[in-house]
Amino acid sequence: MISTSIRRQFRSIVGEDWFLETPEDLATYSYDAFLQEFKPDGVMVPGNIDQISKIMDIASKEKINIIPRGAGTNICGSSVARKGGMMMAFHRLNRILEIDHESMCAVVQPGVVNADLQKEVEKQGLMYPPDPASLFVSTIGGNVALNAGGPRGVKYGVTRDYLLGLEVVLPSGEVVRTGGKALKSVSGYDLTRLMCGSEGTLGIFTEIILRLVPLPPAKATLQAIFSDLDDAATTVSAIIGSGIVPTTLELIDRVVLEVIRDYGGAQFPEGAEALLLIEVDGEKEVVEGQGERIEQFCRKRGAVSVERASSPEKAEKLWQARRSAFGAVAGLRPNCIVEDATVPVKRLPGMIRKIVEISEKYTLKIGVLAHAGDGNLHPLIMTDLRDKEEMARIDKAVEELFEAAISMGGTLSGEHGIGIAKDRFMSMEFSERAIELMRGIKRVFDPNNILNPGSFL
Amino acid sequence: MISTSIRRQFRSIVGEDWFLETPEDLATYSYDAFLQEFKPDGVMVPGNIDQISKIMDIASKEKINIIPRGAGTNICGSSVARKGGMMMAFHRLNRILEIDHESMCAVVQPGVVNADLQKEVEKQGLMYPPDPASLFVSTIGGNVALNAGGPRGVKYGVTRDYLLGLEVVLPSGEVVRTGGKALKSVSGYDLTRLMCGSEGTLGIFTEIILRLVPLPPAKATLQAIFSDLDDAATTVSAIIGSGIVPTTLELIDRVVLEVIRDYGGAQFPEGAEALLLIEVDGEKEVVEGQGERIEQFCRKRGAVSVERASSPEKAEKLWQARRSAFGAVAGLRPNCIVEDATVPVKRLPGMIRKIVEISEKYTLKIGVLAHAGDGNLHPLIMTDLRDKEEMARIDKAVEELFEAAISMGGTLSGEHGIGIAKDRFMSMEFSERAIELMRGIKRVFDPNNILNPGSFL
Repeated sequence: MISTSIRRQFRSIVGEDWFLETPEDLATYSYDAFLQEFKPDGVMVPGNIDQISKIMDIASKEKINIIPRGAGTNICGSSVARKGGMMMAFHRLNRILEIDHESMCAVVQPGVVNADLQKEVEKQGLMYPPDPASLFVSTIGGNVALNAGGPRGVKYGVTRDYLLGLEVVLPSGEVVRTGGKALKSVSGYDLTRLMCGSEGTLGIFTEIILRLVPLPPAKATLQAIFSDLDDAATTVSAIIGSGIVPTTLELIDRVVLEVIRDYGGAQFPEGAEALLLIEVDGEKEVVEGQGERIEQFCRKRGAVSVERASSPEKAEKLWQARRSAFGAVAGLRPNCIVEDATVPVKRLPGMIRKIVEISEKYTLKIGVLAHAGDGNLHPLIMTDLRDKEEMARIDKAVEELFEAAISMGGTLSGEHGIGIAKDRFMSMEFSERAIELMRGIKRVFDPNNILNPGSFL
Repeated sequence: MISTSIRRQFRSIVGEDWFLETPEDLATYSYDAFLQEFKPDGVMVPGNIDQISKIMDIASKEKINIIPRGAGTNICGSSVARKGGMMMAFHRLNRILEIDHESMCAVVQPGVVNADLQKEVEKQGLMYPPDPASLFVSTIGGNVALNAGGPRGVKYGVTRDYLLGLEVVLPSGEVVRTGGKALKSVSGYDLTRLMCGSEGTLGIFTEIILRLVPLPPAKATLQAIFSDLDDAATTVSAIIGSGIVPTTLELIDRVVLEVIRDYGGAQFPEGAEALLLIEVDGEKEVVEGQGERIEQFCRKRGAVSVERASSPEKAEKLWQARRSAFGAVAGLRPNCIVEDATVPVKRLPGMIRKIVEISEKYTLKIGVLAHAGDGNLHPLIMTDLRDKEEMARIDKAVEELFEAAISMGGTLSGEHGIGIAKDRFMSMEFSERAIELMRGIKRVFDPNNILNPGSFL
C-alpha cells in the first residue's frame, strides 16, 4: 500500500482533479482489453513533463510501481497493475504539437488518438500509415509502447517504421531525448527503436516524432471468395510473390464468415470457406492495373467470386465484413481470445491448416482472421472465461499454436505484444540468454523495477 | 600483447592459413576507410560459427580485444584496433544461404558483398534496397553493423528497415537468435534493431535475415542544373513536400562540380552552382508522369537546364557525375574528409548556407555532396592530413558544422556512424544520461569490454 503522505505528494503534483482513487476510478483502470483484473492503488493524470518527472523521482526513491497506460486497448495485458502501483494516464497530453510538411514529420504528445492524427495529416495530403483496429481510441503513446501494426502493414510496416524520435522520462525522473526530425540517423545505439515495443517498461514517452508519407491519390479494393481455404492461403503468397505490394491483404475463414453472416454483418455465397479482402493504393492508373491483375490471380486460383469496388462507397461496403468481424465474434459467446502468432508468408497455408487441426483436436471454436499479407494471423478463440474445463483446453491449444508458429520460423506476436498474456511463452521464441539480455537492458533503464514491473520480463 | 599460448589456441581454431600475423597482413588490417592507423595484434578469419564461438570464449576469459571487420569501408574508424587486439574478418563466411521469394526475404552470411546479394535477388525480380556507395566491396555484416544507407534511402530507407533477424555470437561466445523470417514481430525488446548500427560493439553477426521488395519495373532519371545553390536546395524540399517520393535525390554543389569537370568526369554549363540528380522508380506510366512533374518543378524554381534520360544508357550517363565525385575529389588534394551531418529536410537550404559560411570563415575547400532528399549531407573537406595548421582549422570547422546540424534538429551521422571519427561529439547530440544508458547496454552485452572497445563509447 502507498502511504498517505506519498499519495498527498502525488496529488499535489498533478492537482486534485487528476488524482483518481474512488472505487469506480480504480475499477475502470483495473483492466485493459486483455480483461484480466488487477486493481491499482490509484490513478494519476499528469498535465506536463515536469509533473511526470517529479512523480518518477518520488516513485524511484520510494520504490512505487508506476504503470503507464494509453487508452488501454492492448490485448496482451501490458497496461495493468499486475504487481500493484499507480496507473499513469495521458489524456491531458493530447496535443498535436506540429505537422512539419516540408520535413515530412509530426511531433505529438503521447495521448493523441491515432485517428485524430490521421485526420489532421490527411488534411495536408499526408498519411500516418500505422492503423491498428483500435485507431479511433488508442493513443500514439500506446501505439509506440506496443509497436502497433494494422491492416496497412503489408505495404507500410508498423509503428517502429515511422518513429523518428522521443522525449522520454526515465524511471528515475530524468529526461532524455533520442532521435529527432532527421529522417536518417545512426548516432550511437538506437534507443528510439529500443523504446518502441518495450511495453511501458523502459520509460514514459512525453513527446513523439513520427515520419509521415504522402497520401496516395487512389485505391482499388477487392473481395474474393474461395470455396477452399487452402486456395485462399496460397493466393496470398502468390500475390505477395508477384511483385505487387498490396496495402492490405486480409483473410477471413469460414468460421468467422458464418458468425458475421449470422450477426447480419454481410452476406456470402453458399460454401464460402474463405474471404480475401485486398486493397492496393497509389497512382490511379497503377492501382487499376494492379486491381485487374489481382482479380485474375484470384480467379486462376479458384476464387468462386471476385468483386472489385467501383466507388469509395462500394469499397466501404467490402470492408464491412472485415470491420464487423470482431463485433460479431464478440457477440457469439461471452469471450473471445485473440491470438497473434505470425509466420513467414510462405508458411501461412500450413499455419492455417494447423489452426484448423488444433481446433478439432481440442473441440474449440476457433476462427481465423489474418493480416495475411505479412503472415500475421489472428486466431479468434470463442469461449467463456468462466468455463474452467474449456479454458484448460484452450491453454493447451494456445501453447500448441505458438509451438507451431515458432517451429515454422514465426513469432509469438506480430503486433499485439507479449504483456502478461504471453510472457510464459517467451522461452519458446528466445533462449534463456536472450531473455537475460532483455532483463539486463531493463535493469539499465529501471534498476528499481518500478515501471510496469508486471509486464513480460 | 597476446601470449604465444593464446595465439596458438586461436591459430588451431581457425586453421594455419587463416591466422594472419605477417607485417604485411597487420598493415593491411591497421586502418579502415577513415585512414587512422592502429596495428592489430593479429587477424583471424573464422570459417564457421563454432570457431567464432570458441574464439570469443577464450577472448572473454583472457580479456582479449576482438574487432569484427567486414570490408573496412566504413569512414568513421569503427573497425580498427584502437586499443589493440585481434581483428576478425569474415570473407570465408560469404554465402547467400537462401533467397525465399515467397516470404520475401534472404538469409545470408556476414561476409556476403552487398552488390553480390543485389545481383542474385534481382535475377528473381526482387530488390535489396540499401545501396551504400561502397556496395561493390562492403559486406552485409558491415552494413548491418553501421546501419548503412545510400542514395536510394529517400524512398527505401536504410539497412535497419530491411533487417528481420540475426544469429549473433555474444562477447562471451554464447549464441543468440533474434527476430526471424516473419515480416512483423513485437516479441520482447527489439534486440535485432539494437544490434543494427551498434558498430561491432555488442555481438558478432553470423547469420543475417533481410527483407526483400519487388524490383520496380521502370525508372526515370533527371539531371537539373541551377545557377543558384539556394534554388536547388529549396527545389529539394519542394519535391519532397509535393507527394512524389523519389528513389534518389542527390545534390552536388559548385565546388564539387568544378572538381568533377577538371577531373574529366562530366561537363556542365557555365555558371552552374548546383546539380540535382533525381530518380524515381515504379510502374512505367507513373514514373513518366512523375518525371514530367519533377522537370516542371525544377524549371519553375530556376533550373537553367533539365535533362531527362530517354534510355538506361542516358540515365547511366547522368549518374556519371555523381559516381565520379569521390574519385575526382580524392584526386585533387592528398586527402578528403567526408562528413555526414544530417538535418530535417526543411533545414537543408540553411545547412548548405552554413557550410559555405564555415568554409569561408576557415578558408577551407569544402564541397557539398548530399543525399538531399533525406537531409543527409556529405560536406567534403579537401585537405592534406600532414598540414598540421590546416588540420587545426578543420577541427574547428567540423565542430562548428556539427553544432549547426544539431541546433537545426539534426544528427551527427545520417549513415556513416560515429566510430572514432565523431565519438568526441556525442555529447552535442546526447545528454550525459543518454550516453550512460548506452554504456549500460554495452555492459549488459559485453561486461569485459572486449568487443571493439575503441569505438564510440
